[in-house]
Amino acid sequence: MVQATALPRNETGIETVVGILKQRFGDRCQTGASIREQHGHTTTYIENQLPDAVVFPHSAEEVSEIVKTCALHKVPVIPFGTGTSLEGHVNAPAGGISVDLMQMNKILAVHASDLDCVVQPGVTREDLNTHLRDQGLFFPIDPGANASLGGMASTRASGTNAVRYGTMKDNVLALQVVMPDGEIIRTAQRAKKSSAGYDLTRLMVGAEGTLGLITEVTLRLQGIPEAISSARCSFPSIDAACQAVMMTIQYGIPVARIELLDALSVSAANVYSKLDLPETPLLLLEFHGSERGVVEQAETFGTIAEEFGGSDFAATTSTEERNKLWQARHDMYWASHGLRPGAKGLSTDICVPISKLAECVTAAADKAEEMGLISPIVGHVGDGNFHCLPLIDMDNPEEIAKAEEFVGWLNDLAISMDGTCTGEHGIGQGKRPYLLKELGPAMKYMAAIKSALDPDNIMNPGKII
Amino acid sequence: MVQATALPRNETGIETVVGILKQRFGDRCQTGASIREQHGHTTTYIENQLPDAVVFPHSAEEVSEIVKTCALHKVPVIPFGTGTSLEGHVNAPAGGISVDLMQMNKILAVHASDLDCVVQPGVTREDLNTHLRDQGLFFPIDPGANASLGGMASTRASGTNAVRYGTMKDNVLALQVVMPDGEIIRTAQRAKKSSAGYDLTRLMVGAEGTLGLITEVTLRLQGIPEAISSARCSFPSIDAACQAVMMTIQYGIPVARIELLDALSVSAANVYSKLDLPETPLLLLEFHGSERGVVEQAETFGTIAEEFGGSDFAATTSTEERNKLWQARHDMYWASHGLRPGAKGLSTDICVPISKLAECVTAAADKAEEMGLISPIVGHVGDGNFHCLPLIDMDNPEEIAKAEEFVGWLNDLAISMDGTCTGEHGIGQGKRPYLLKELGPAMKYMAAIKSALDPDNIMNPGKII
Repeated sequence: MVQATALPRNETGIETVVGILKQRFGDRCQTGASIREQHGHTTTYIENQLPDAVVFPHSAEEVSEIVKTCALHKVPVIPFGTGTSLEGHVNAPAGGISVDLMQMNKILAVHASDLDCVVQPGVTREDLNTHLRDQGLFFPIDPGANASLGGMASTRASGTNAVRYGTMKDNVLALQVVMPDGEIIRTAQRAKKSSAGYDLTRLMVGAEGTLGLITEVTLRLQGIPEAISSARCSFPSIDAACQAVMMTIQYGIPVARIELLDALSVSAANVYSKLDLPETPLLLLEFHGSERGVVEQAETFGTIAEEFGGSDFAATTSTEERNKLWQARHDMYWASHGLRPGAKGLSTDICVPISKLAECVTAAADKAEEMGLISPIVGHVGDGNFHCLPLIDMDNPEEIAKAEEFVGWLNDLAISMDGTCTGEHGIGQGKRPYLLKELGPAMKYMAAIKSALDPDNIMNPGKII
Repeated sequence: MVQATALPRNETGIETVVGILKQRFGDRCQTGASIREQHGHTTTYIENQLPDAVVFPHSAEEVSEIVKTCALHKVPVIPFGTGTSLEGHVNAPAGGISVDLMQMNKILAVHASDLDCVVQPGVTREDLNTHLRDQGLFFPIDPGANASLGGMASTRASGTNAVRYGTMKDNVLALQVVMPDGEIIRTAQRAKKSSAGYDLTRLMVGAEGTLGLITEVTLRLQGIPEAISSARCSFPSIDAACQAVMMTIQYGIPVARIELLDALSVSAANVYSKLDLPETPLLLLEFHGSERGVVEQAETFGTIAEEFGGSDFAATTSTEERNKLWQARHDMYWASHGLRPGAKGLSTDICVPISKLAECVTAAADKAEEMGLISPIVGHVGDGNFHCLPLIDMDNPEEIAKAEEFVGWLNDLAISMDGTCTGEHGIGQGKRPYLLKELGPAMKYMAAIKSALDPDNIMNPGKII
């Protein structure tokens, strides 16, 4: 695994807090090695740094109690959802208390006529959508994993639908947050827009638990469109596929999804998801609208695709076919690992202005090949966001060094193109050096905000700042 | 006028800074009474609190110089755009330096293929749209006034198109900001989405110049739709009009604009804009999409309107007719003043969840009548946001008291409905007591952020916090 810096531990404080929490929460405070290991690790490529205990609260009041106890004794608090973050977000480099929010999994209210809902942080996106379906509503944000909505807010997640519906930043209306001193606040009312003071909602979205712990999320919902159609189209090269994406976006076709899989990814998906797709760069699309609207959109896209040598264009309104394709897309992280069994993927997450997309993806593919890396590429290309996933033997330090060199090179390339090192995964532990390169002078003020709200640095220390 | 609290003045510091700036900026540092009066006042209903000097910088570096000078001597800095804010945002309750940004009015870049642009803060929304038109692009956010884009970012402005295109929060990609210590930062790269650290962009949008001074704005742009049609429809009551709005939103019709004018507003518009509309509650709409799409949308709305007793439904694709209607809508602030010449309007700005819209607008109209106030109502009702504009004789303390009672009652009503006291105007000086009612415990953390970034409280003091 990739090493992470350990931070000084407050042994006395930790011992005291674990004692208090055990007494207070009984079986809901666990200190066994395997549960602690699971709560520090999960899908990241970064080495495991265990918390000292895992607590399972049932309410904001209980979270507040935990945070107040930790604050008093200056002990770290690390929020935990499904553990599907990728940049070491749930590691405990200074030890401390992992707060597992998955027992706070109630859907508190669905305001169908306002197109919003209020959920606890442990509700997953799939749970929410299952609950909403009967009411003709859905929540569009879909990272690959079936992540918790609190975690998705914390990492400013997005996914395949972001090109049309935005990211968590655009879809969180308000939050309830337990602040670093244990106080419970609400960041906004439920109105659709507001100019009422500093935007604490957006400050907490993407703060990765370093400024407070989210205990309730008010989300915007969407009506299930009258018609949905999906399409796929193969291209002779990555460049051709990206050129088609760029023109689709610039034409203003309101695609709901437009996803790229390179040839390597298609071959991985064919195996993992039992598909039979041509093994060349592929675009997967989805269109939302009226019956006539989705036909119009698919036709316009078809014309664009043809211009760039697209072939095997197939549009369908069959729900079954559509679900199969999108399930395969969501399983790509796991499917890709099949390309090199035993290896671990180091996901990159750059996002560039759309005009740079073709140049950037092509350069990334060329560089990986030049470096001898097996590195499939998938991407939410309508937003200029894509992931290379170099598959690395984590017992081989040379390979790790090579992968890190590739990741660094790619992040630098994105930054030089006025893009970002992370479109949706967040900074965590892994991307901190690149955040500094990307936003340099702004970091001083992020640090000032962190110090002002969390002077003892107890909230998820070692992440972002 | 409504009185505003004066804050302690740092006379020595102010005198020193004015001397330095006069020497440094020559004619671009003005101290005449009338120019100072103009820079503290403009469209607000709050009494004039003059700055001590007005400086006209040409670059971020010059702004940085001004802020560093003020920071050294602990003298207030108040940013100024077109002065069209409504809540005393540009007043100088502790004196200090008004920084007029209107000479920083260059459009620095239009990245047509990325659908974004970079502008200086003094570019107005109309200037930008004139510049963009030839490229088939537009910037959708349109407060009534032809405001500056820096000012619009600072107040988190929106307007009639927000129901479809969002507010400034959704349309600012990145900012260049001169921080309270004079350092120049960039809050984000130009990528369409990002999870790179705290969202300083969104923190600065709506901060009303209290955390820094915006010197560059990167904005998302939209392609001019293939087809635009507009429509108007009269209703027997405010309730009926609002019910039609609620159903339109709940049906997911992607209206670009849906605006309410009450009967009083229609009569004011008829006079001011030489129209001949039936003097009953009116909805104005606009649809954006493909040729077929806008027809579909208008038809679906027509069916809904009929259900609620809508009459005189008229849709048109004529640009001239459309512009005439929307110009009338944008002129409503001035038109309303014609209802009572010599009086001053005290604009309210509440925004409630859409399910509460009919109840809330009706209650507001009834209350104004009960209190004997002349108070036309207009609103961006698709977002649940509307403005009552009680027209007050500002020389009559009893009337002012009555208006303030009405405003307070209405803000409390909105807050009780999980809404906000301000959908788009901001807090400024006028709405501070309501912000406290609305977000209570959260205010402590807003204040902590303010103190961390601006420990001497020099950036637009007396606003928000």
